[in-house]
Amino acid sequence: MTVNRDELKRAAALRAIEEVEDGMVLGLGTGSTAAHVVEGLAARVKEGLRIVGIPSSERTAAQARRLGIQIATFAEYQKLDLTIDGADEVELGTLHLIKGLGGALLREKIVAAASKRLVIVVDQEKLVERLGEHTPVPVEVTQFGWQATAAALATLGSMPERRYIGEQPFVTDEGHLILDCRFGPIADPAVLEARIAMTVGTIESGLFVGRSSMVVVASDSGVEVLFPPPRGAV
Amino acid sequence: MTVNRDELKRAAALRAIEEVEDGMVLGLGTGSTAAHVVEGLAARVKEGLRIVGIPSSERTAAQARRLGIQIATFAEYQKLDLTIDGADEVELGTLHLIKGLGGALLREKIVAAASKRLVIVVDQEKLVERLGEHTPVPVEVTQFGWQATAAALATLGSMPERRYIGEQPFVTDEGHLILDCRFGPIADPAVLEARIAMTVGTIESGLFVGRSSMVVVASDSGVEVLFPPPRGAV
Repeated sequence: MTVNRDELKRAAALRAIEEVEDGMVLGLGTGSTAAHVVEGLAARVKEGLRIVGIPSSERTAAQARRLGIQIATFAEYQKLDLTIDGADEVELGTLHLIKGLGGALLREKIVAAASKRLVIVVDQEKLVERLGEHTPVPVEVTQFGWQATAAALATLGSMPERRYIGEQPFVTDEGHLILDCRFGPIADPAVLEARIAMTVGTIESGLFVGRSSMVVVASDSGVEVLFPPPRGAV
Repeated sequence: MTVNRDELKRAAALRAIEEVEDGMVLGLGTGSTAAHVVEGLAARVKEGLRIVGIPSSERTAAQARRLGIQIATFAEYQKLDLTIDGADEVELGTLHLIKGLGGALLREKIVAAASKRLVIVVDQEKLVERLGEHTPVPVEVTQFGWQATAAALATLGSMPERRYIGEQPFVTDEGHLILDCRFGPIADPAVLEARIAMTVGTIESGLFVGRSSMVVVASDSGVEVLFPPPRGAV
């Protein structure tokens, strides 16, 4: 019997939702996995769960509204209890992440940074031994001087490529560009994250280091839950 | 005999322009001091000096165009030879800077970061023993989640205040907000700059650490030139 891949992701999303408690302020991620999460949350809200969601994209906001989830902004809440989101790569052991291939990395990172806990839901194929194995690190940069910023990012050991949608440069919700920087396997994600942050003209990178509280994995054998090592052990 | 303050600034600007050589690609700053620089450059261009300027604001671009200075963008040049700009505070000894009270800190920093040398022109009243004595550190932040970003910046030891123009929040050329963060005298500007850079939601701070090649000071006694300590000595 073949297990339906999408069913597995849905099951993983439901496992993540078990972490949600009544009265929580929740960060809502963006992407196909996050859509499963919002759907599952909506079902629990219909059963009486009271939550407020802060969405990381217009797309998620629209879905949440349609399904009857109360949404809010950072004007009302600066501290969130929990964020549930997907990821593009999860490093086994450390649970460091690469996010942002969907283009919402800045808002996703702001939401995650404001949350006490970050729960990630992924398909098993997103697990890697070393971040950067399969995907580039997306870096959001200002339009002004992006060429100079790209030259500076190249000195960190990547070949930055401006992201396009068809013939047009991709522009983020905040009006910035994305440079996809292929580093190959990354020896020290924390150091790389800091170097990118210190590069003038960058706004945020898709490296999420030490932010995961828990990763729920949809695998062929079912739903698996991973926890990061204790702080200071990595 | 009282020396005219504006005449002194003009003299300092002219001293800075002595650093310009034929064929250079120049970063052009923003503000009243930078306006003197552009004026002085235009006079030398009329005498035959060939330069290309990359302006850090629309205001400077307009002035340069009007005075006949050839301007360009980062699409054409990713590396600049020299940038001449003003500053809001200059730390004696280190020559670290606070810039951005004029609101153009992001573009000014991108231009400075792309330049081999940064020459700063200031009035003597901008010299301080410790950065932060008189002015807040301007931090450019994304509009999305700025309240959460302000809360995070507060944990670094400041009281961030959103900048206003009259009744309206000030919005930068790139569509961001400015949080003016009053830290008081700053013990270690390099550490603070890194902490602000690592704060999710920030784009750039007005701290310029280790970037000055030379500071030209307009003082009551004339024009004085300061140089930073050798690298590694601070």
